[in-house]
Amino acid sequence: MLRSKRRLLRLAVWSALLAWILWITPATLAAQEVPSEPQASAGHGDPVAPILLALLFIAFGAALGGRAMRRFGQPAVLGELLVGVLIANIGYWLGEPVLTVLREGEGLLKVIETSLTQSLSLAEAARRMLPDTDETRNLIAILTSPGGPTAVSIFQFVDNLSRIAVIVLLFLVGLETSVHEMAKVGMTSLFVALLGIIAPFLLGVGVMYVLIPDAPLAKDIFIGAILTATSVGITARVFRDLKQSHRTEAKIILGAAVIDDVLGLVILAVVSGLVVSGTISVASVSLITFKAVVFLVLSIGLGMWLTPRLVRQMKRMDIENLKLLFGLGMAFVLSWLANLVGLATIVGAFAAGLVLEEFFLNELRGHSLRDLLSPLESLIVPVFFVLMGMQVKLETLTTGWILLFAGVLTLAAIAGKIVSGLACGRGLDRLSVGIGMMPRGEVGLIFASVGRGLGVVDDATFSAVVIMVMVTTLLAPPLLKLSLERSAGKAS
Amino acid sequence: MLRSKRRLLRLAVWSALLAWILWITPATLAAQEVPSEPQASAGHGDPVAPILLALLFIAFGAALGGRAMRRFGQPAVLGELLVGVLIANIGYWLGEPVLTVLREGEGLLKVIETSLTQSLSLAEAARRMLPDTDETRNLIAILTSPGGPTAVSIFQFVDNLSRIAVIVLLFLVGLETSVHEMAKVGMTSLFVALLGIIAPFLLGVGVMYVLIPDAPLAKDIFIGAILTATSVGITARVFRDLKQSHRTEAKIILGAAVIDDVLGLVILAVVSGLVVSGTISVASVSLITFKAVVFLVLSIGLGMWLTPRLVRQMKRMDIENLKLLFGLGMAFVLSWLANLVGLATIVGAFAAGLVLEEFFLNELRGHSLRDLLSPLESLIVPVFFVLMGMQVKLETLTTGWILLFAGVLTLAAIAGKIVSGLACGRGLDRLSVGIGMMPRGEVGLIFASVGRGLGVVDDATFSAVVIMVMVTTLLAPPLLKLSLERSAGKAS
Repeated sequence: MLRSKRRLLRLAVWSALLAWILWITPATLAAQEVPSEPQASAGHGDPVAPILLALLFIAFGAALGGRAMRRFGQPAVLGELLVGVLIANIGYWLGEPVLTVLREGEGLLKVIETSLTQSLSLAEAARRMLPDTDETRNLIAILTSPGGPTAVSIFQFVDNLSRIAVIVLLFLVGLETSVHEMAKVGMTSLFVALLGIIAPFLLGVGVMYVLIPDAPLAKDIFIGAILTATSVGITARVFRDLKQSHRTEAKIILGAAVIDDVLGLVILAVVSGLVVSGTISVASVSLITFKAVVFLVLSIGLGMWLTPRLVRQMKRMDIENLKLLFGLGMAFVLSWLANLVGLATIVGAFAAGLVLEEFFLNELRGHSLRDLLSPLESLIVPVFFVLMGMQVKLETLTTGWILLFAGVLTLAAIAGKIVSGLACGRGLDRLSVGIGMMPRGEVGLIFASVGRGLGVVDDATFSAVVIMVMVTTLLAPPLLKLSLERSAGKAS
Repeated sequence: MLRSKRRLLRLAVWSALLAWILWITPATLAAQEVPSEPQASAGHGDPVAPILLALLFIAFGAALGGRAMRRFGQPAVLGELLVGVLIANIGYWLGEPVLTVLREGEGLLKVIETSLTQSLSLAEAARRMLPDTDETRNLIAILTSPGGPTAVSIFQFVDNLSRIAVIVLLFLVGLETSVHEMAKVGMTSLFVALLGIIAPFLLGVGVMYVLIPDAPLAKDIFIGAILTATSVGITARVFRDLKQSHRTEAKIILGAAVIDDVLGLVILAVVSGLVVSGTISVASVSLITFKAVVFLVLSIGLGMWLTPRLVRQMKRMDIENLKLLFGLGMAFVLSWLANLVGLATIVGAFAAGLVLEEFFLNELRGHSLRDLLSPLESLIVPVFFVLMGMQVKLETLTTGWILLFAGVLTLAAIAGKIVSGLACGRGLDRLSVGIGMMPRGEVGLIFASVGRGLGVVDDATFSAVVIMVMVTTLLAPPLLKLSLERSAGKAS
């Protein structure tokens, strides 16, 4: 027993070392590449090569992290997040270009978009878009270094792949849930969503009023709005890791998250309007709400009507792996449509899964869709969570005042969502529902960056929001596990 | 029967229409996006949304094309190529931005790289890197239009995904072949590779001598060198489509393609050296050869030694889907290493498949690696071939002189490789081996673009080479099928 453990340790150390060497080599090599010499570029020079290495590194890191956490009885997703936090922060500290670029996330995406739309170089766009800090100067140095282009291309691919991964995850979650089951918990979900918006909003405004009494009301309101966000990816994954997706609590959270995404849209439109013009445009808010509701009703209603007919047509077509193609096709189309009406892509993916669940599995031949997607899931879903972990910037935890502000904000964020669980009836695990609603993830960050664009969220507040998002996201897996175990203990 | 056909037709027409509408909408929408209005950007705005749509469109196009070709008894890959050719050329003709950008391929990759390394905007980089033609001006207009960034980000993702796809394909081909089997056909492969280099080279130089008698010798030699290229992706796929991968002919072609890739590196180094300095640097050529040979020997030798040991270690680790992760990990590492020594990534992927084949399937638990990879293969491999088809530019077929030049060059290219089949012993299907060696694919284009960079391949010659690559690539699937049927008819 001891011997096998020592071996394992050795293996882990060796693979970490190997991975590290493999990881830094492309950057080093890229730095040596001299494009003017024809002989040096005699090879094929496949641009995907450094991406392969990055994917490999992320996948193995995720596997090791997930395994370590499972040993401690924790959900694998926590290990993936922590591996991301660890690697990226060490890499940043060591000045490793690829990891430094990967942890930029949203910010870098905006820089890339600005560079493309305004015909600027990446460095110039970064100078204009990002705050003038050491970190930005560091990033610009990397972008203009010979290894910069490789790092950016790795970032772009991994970022898009991780977005597809979370779409696949929510599609799978939807597949395991039926429209019928969701309808049953619909009212409860609605109450949870509403309470999960009202409570954090009031707490957020209260915190601002106490901590920064002289802030304008628009700012208080915006911070309150940021706290209302819900990101369902983490929770969905934890329920999957613990094989508890069938529980009523899971369905309530999913329903509430969908409703929260719709309401979040409305809230963002309202508070943005308040900040910009001091008024609320009823027409624009109604339009946004209308589009989102139409999408949900049509995608689920029409989807349920159309799918069996489409499947019957397709049964006659002799296309290989039609089931997989059709399933992912639905997920992709609805994700795209959801994005079009302003909802999160994952809401569309979840809707696609809901619609497909019932008839699909028996109509077309071949393995079940879940079995077909399982290898894909295990390969790419961890990429999303490692990347999410990578974008946790530990250096934001250094200033005293921000830390205090962030701490209070985080407490308000946690308390506000845990309260939302009270909207469930008796007999359900209210605490788990509350904790499940807790992670803010990318949704909170999107709210905050809209606020930053409007000038209502300053750098200090943004850092505090980032810390709040980090903490709520990292705390959710272990807390949710504890709470689910507690209720299982009670039940038995 | 008739009724079901009519239905099918209707379905096809409707889906084509739907697809078209979905396709043009993102471009239209992107054009309307006004970034300055905060209310307008209230949604999440997931940047992956347009990529989802593009992938869906490509995947369904591939499925329909493949199905249509299978109806005519042709390999599915031909349908995927033709769908690509059709869609992209119609899209280009209609000025559709995404399709216009997708068909640029290699050229656009260089533009992106230049833009990143030299801190230029994409449009500026395109102006510097591409010839000053209507096509380039058209491309620049798209790049600077509001839909440009979306089109570029779709291109980058699809391009990288297709590169990963062909790596997965060659890895799977390798998995179905053992080192032992390859060793058995080794000498034959070597002869086929050598004859497949000498014959097209001499024919190429001959064609140049007859058609353009006053061209410098360096140019004649470079054209000859371009004709020596082999791209094994198409052939490997045709053998898979026809379920003939087990045939000795398939193994001979694979072995010859690997050898050809090594020799191609040497040839490219030699002719580039000749063109640049008029001399051959023995040191640099030896270094290139040495690195490639060391890679092949080490990856196969060390791989065979190390793999069973690694697998035994890993059996004890409780990692989900370890088999898939380890298999793809090997493929990715060896692809990356192959690229590092200047070989094609697919040579590394094939080597990984060769090494894993024997012990793997029984040692770890779960489905076989082939079964696990099958859904992934069916999803992404067609993307590679559709994209390859998309990059066939039909408008190059318009000038009379280029057409003549290209025609003669193509005949030389075909004849040269078909001759190489003669290096097989009796009792084998020599014609199929020759045809299997015929497609030049991306390898021929890479040779040609190196030549263009050195100034030895002018625009007219480049167009002729592009036509040669197109024709050898598109002709291979139907010819290979015919020839394999002929030999099966003889045998029975």
